[in-house]
Amino acid sequence: MRIDLNADLGEGFGAYEHGADELLLDVVSSANIACGFHAGDPHTMRAAVEACVERGVAIGAHPGLPDRLGFGRRELAISSREAADFVLYQAGALSGFARSAGRRLRHVKLHGAFYHMASKDEELADEVALAVRSLDPSLLLYGPPGSRLEAAAERAGIGFVPEGFADRAYGADGGLVPRRMPGAVLERPEDVVRQALALAGHGKFRTLCVHGDTPQAAELARLIAEQLRQAGFEIGAPIGTNSNGVE
Amino acid sequence: MRIDLNADLGEGFGAYEHGADELLLDVVSSANIACGFHAGDPHTMRAAVEACVERGVAIGAHPGLPDRLGFGRRELAISSREAADFVLYQAGALSGFARSAGRRLRHVKLHGAFYHMASKDEELADEVALAVRSLDPSLLLYGPPGSRLEAAAERAGIGFVPEGFADRAYGADGGLVPRRMPGAVLERPEDVVRQALALAGHGKFRTLCVHGDTPQAAELARLIAEQLRQAGFEIGAPIGTNSNGVE
Amino acid sequence: MRIDLNADLGEGFGAYEHGADELLLDVVSSANIACGFHAGDPHTMRAAVEACVERGVAIGAHPGLPDRLGFGRRELAISSREAADFVLYQAGALSGFARSAGRRLRHVKLHGAFYHMASKDEELADEVALAVRSLDPSLLLYGPPGSRLEAAAERAGIGFVPEGFADRAYGADGGLVPRRMPGAVLERPEDVVRQALALAGHGKFRTLCVHGDTPQAAELARLIAEQLRQAGFEIGAPIGTNSNGVE
Amino acid sequence: MRIDLNADLGEGFGAYEHGADELLLDVVSSANIACGFHAGDPHTMRAAVEACVERGVAIGAHPGLPDRLGFGRRELAISSREAADFVLYQAGALSGFARSAGRRLRHVKLHGAFYHMASKDEELADEVALAVRSLDPSLLLYGPPGSRLEAAAERAGIGFVPEGFADRAYGADGGLVPRRMPGAVLERPEDVVRQALALAGHGKFRTLCVHGDTPQAAELARLIAEQLRQAGFEIGAPIGTNSNGVE
Repeated sequence: MRIDLNADLGEGFGAYEHGADELLLDVVSSANIACGFHAGDPHTMRAAVEACVERGVAIGAHPGLPDRLGFGRRELAISSREAADFVLYQAGALSGFARSAGRRLRHVKLHGAFYHMASKDEELADEVALAVRSLDPSLLLYGPPGSRLEAAAERAGIGFVPEGFADRAYGADGGLVPRRMPGAVLERPEDVVRQALALAGHGKFRTLCVHGDTPQAAELARLIAEQLRQAGFEIGAPIGTNSNGVE
Repeated sequence: MRIDLNADLGEGFGAYEHGADELLLDVVSSANIACGFHAGDPHTMRAAVEACVERGVAIGAHPGLPDRLGFGRRELAISSREAADFVLYQAGALSGFARSAGRRLRHVKLHGAFYHMASKDEELADEVALAVRSLDPSLLLYGPPGSRLEAAAERAGIGFVPEGFADRAYGADGGLVPRRMPGAVLERPEDVVRQALALAGHGKFRTLCVHGDTPQAAELARLIAEQLRQAGFEIGAPIGTNSNGVE
Repeated sequence: MRIDLNADLGEGFGAYEHGADELLLDVVSSANIACGFHAGDPHTMRAAVEACVERGVAIGAHPGLPDRLGFGRRELAISSREAADFVLYQAGALSGFARSAGRRLRHVKLHGAFYHMASKDEELADEVALAVRSLDPSLLLYGPPGSRLEAAAERAGIGFVPEGFADRAYGADGGLVPRRMPGAVLERPEDVVRQALALAGHGKFRTLCVHGDTPQAAELARLIAEQLRQAGFEIGAPIGTNSNGVE
Repeated sequence: MRIDLNADLGEGFGAYEHGADELLLDVVSSANIACGFHAGDPHTMRAAVEACVERGVAIGAHPGLPDRLGFGRRELAISSREAADFVLYQAGALSGFARSAGRRLRHVKLHGAFYHMASKDEELADEVALAVRSLDPSLLLYGPPGSRLEAAAERAGIGFVPEGFADRAYGADGGLVPRRMPGAVLERPEDVVRQALALAGHGKFRTLCVHGDTPQAAELARLIAEQLRQAGFEIGAPIGTNSNGVE
């Protein structure tokens, strides 16, 4: 039983710090590194890549919408062509730092509103998946199970890694309870840990997203990892196999 | 006798166009593509790369200072570490589009004030050259002959391509006449053509920079190429050989 | 019979020029000056204000969404509070140049997707109108007649100037024919001129928007002005009277 | 005996917070609010202005260089005309929020590298002072005593407020000890407090800059204020009198 723990990394900018990157890196098996659109800059990217290399954490690109002021959380009416170019630019930029450190990117996970838009929109999802494949067919795409992104990854012939959220409630239909609903976000640590164990055991999810915006959140992530290990899970980056058998 | 003609490409941004890219591409053998800091954006980069692939023009990164408002022409007091990160980010981003089109970058040429700063400053030059090598040791670095960039490329063990400017006057010391001096910029087409022929024949230069900011400038570039061919030069991208014998 | 002709001005950025500002300024009675979010920068704003002062053209702010790459034409999911702050920031910035030149702003016209979003959304429209009033209760707000912006201006107690588009077709319901429909954009100069005369004579519109993206467009604007004068219209900036009787 | 305590405020951006604004506002008599170039955004500006209004703190603009990545701390080779436009844009934008809250700006203090550049360069200083006057001749300009900014303010006929730094060592010549020298920055709280008292008593300084980047720094600022009051100083914003007798 193997499960990936992923977290967003390198979300500072210039003089601004954001998140407890150091604490998280001891916990997760893969990192989604901000690429300079919604957050991050060339210096945070270099530092994040180097920190991942030191700890053996898999390096992934976390492309966002070009809305630094809104931290990439506001929907922006982009075309699917624009979406593809945003992915190529940002994942390309991060790959520069990865190659400079002797590594390659392992995955791509869209950020914030970009993630949600592409999960629902077939055309966006297809262009994103094709862009990822054109960059490197062995790259894995993270996204919600059953989403447009999953179908697009399959059509594009790249590996897809279904993702669950440890601190979000799931409805009877298997989808996330919308944030505006009561109980949508799990707040008690014990609930988050229980949910993480349930998602990991479910079989539908191959990676779990944990948060590290605050030291408390990073501590909770550590607790999740500990409980998963005690329950017999091995925590490790997904072993990618795309439809062409490329690992 | 082989000489490279290079020009800046893809310097538009969003709704803004800049330069006569289409005309230039029929003339030059290598293109320096803006990477989104001083000019350019993900969409201009994709278009520029695709146009280079169509015409068989060698693709190079043209990293600039993060000063879009000033078009990268104003000196900014950056550290050498920041310089290296700017190169990795921008060249990495462009390489995303190149790989997506099945190509690789052939060279890196710094833009504007970044080019001038690194030509004079040993520490900046060294960090830039090491960043280029860490990205890909077969990448060529363009710069002024005899500059700090040339020495740094040699120390880093990457190929260096000395560059001349067809429309700038050179002094008795072999260096550019500063722009503020009378006669620093050649304005008559016949002077520019004559200068291009002299630089190409001099042996010290392996690439000549031509401009295409206006249709007239692109037409002049065409004339230069024609005259070089008539004088027996073959126009082609530099064949890179770094100190490790890598082409 | 008095009609205002307005046009967008100062939409360049840094090294990039955009539009035929000089030609337009001889034609229009009021200018909507880009304020640095979708287009424009401190230098284009100073130049545009100075040019308006020279020609006696009324100065208005043209606040856009913070999306320079998309020229403010893509919808962005902002809150009404964010909308108000974007208006205060941009109109405030332009008023700095106006005061520096001994003038005051006469109007505010939202740009692009911001204009369309606030025309349809009551909450956005209300916050925008209140922001305009808080800045200066004698400022006029331009917008489509019958839109949420008109109702919001009335509630806020500021003057509203209903705007027509000379080159867009209007449907039987009095609203713009959507751009995706055939015939939505009038392309023949004689149709545009006829439409301008019809809108001016209709009584529902107090300002007409003309375009100057190209020298041809600016020439067409000149033709519209000429025909309006021949038809007996006086072209002049709206004389503002808000609901408090302030002019 | 009256002394002004000033501090930088509103230096966050989007999702990023910066500094202990709330703590500082109970201590200082005037605030320098970031205006969106080196830091700050429309929402932080509105919040900072509202907080100043609540506490009766004088509102000043803190224009920086357009280098958000570098937090305005890196010198950028701008022309004096560009400097003036940067001041008009940023101070104008802030004045939008001030007017919206029923207040006016009291002063302008340049930020970071902009402050240092204009303190040394006569042409920059003159254009900045003239820009400030053209915006509002009753605005006060903060700067180092004996600097180019002081001379420029005098020539422009606007009020100048000489500023001291509580935590920086001053040399025998009355100027700041350069940061690279040992002892340039006072680190022990008791030294900072002693220095603040000395500067306040010296007569040459009418405002003291205190920092609030961290809760500890804000606490130190509170201590300075307390000691100044015990030493008989009244802490209050400068009462501006420019050379035209305008208060």
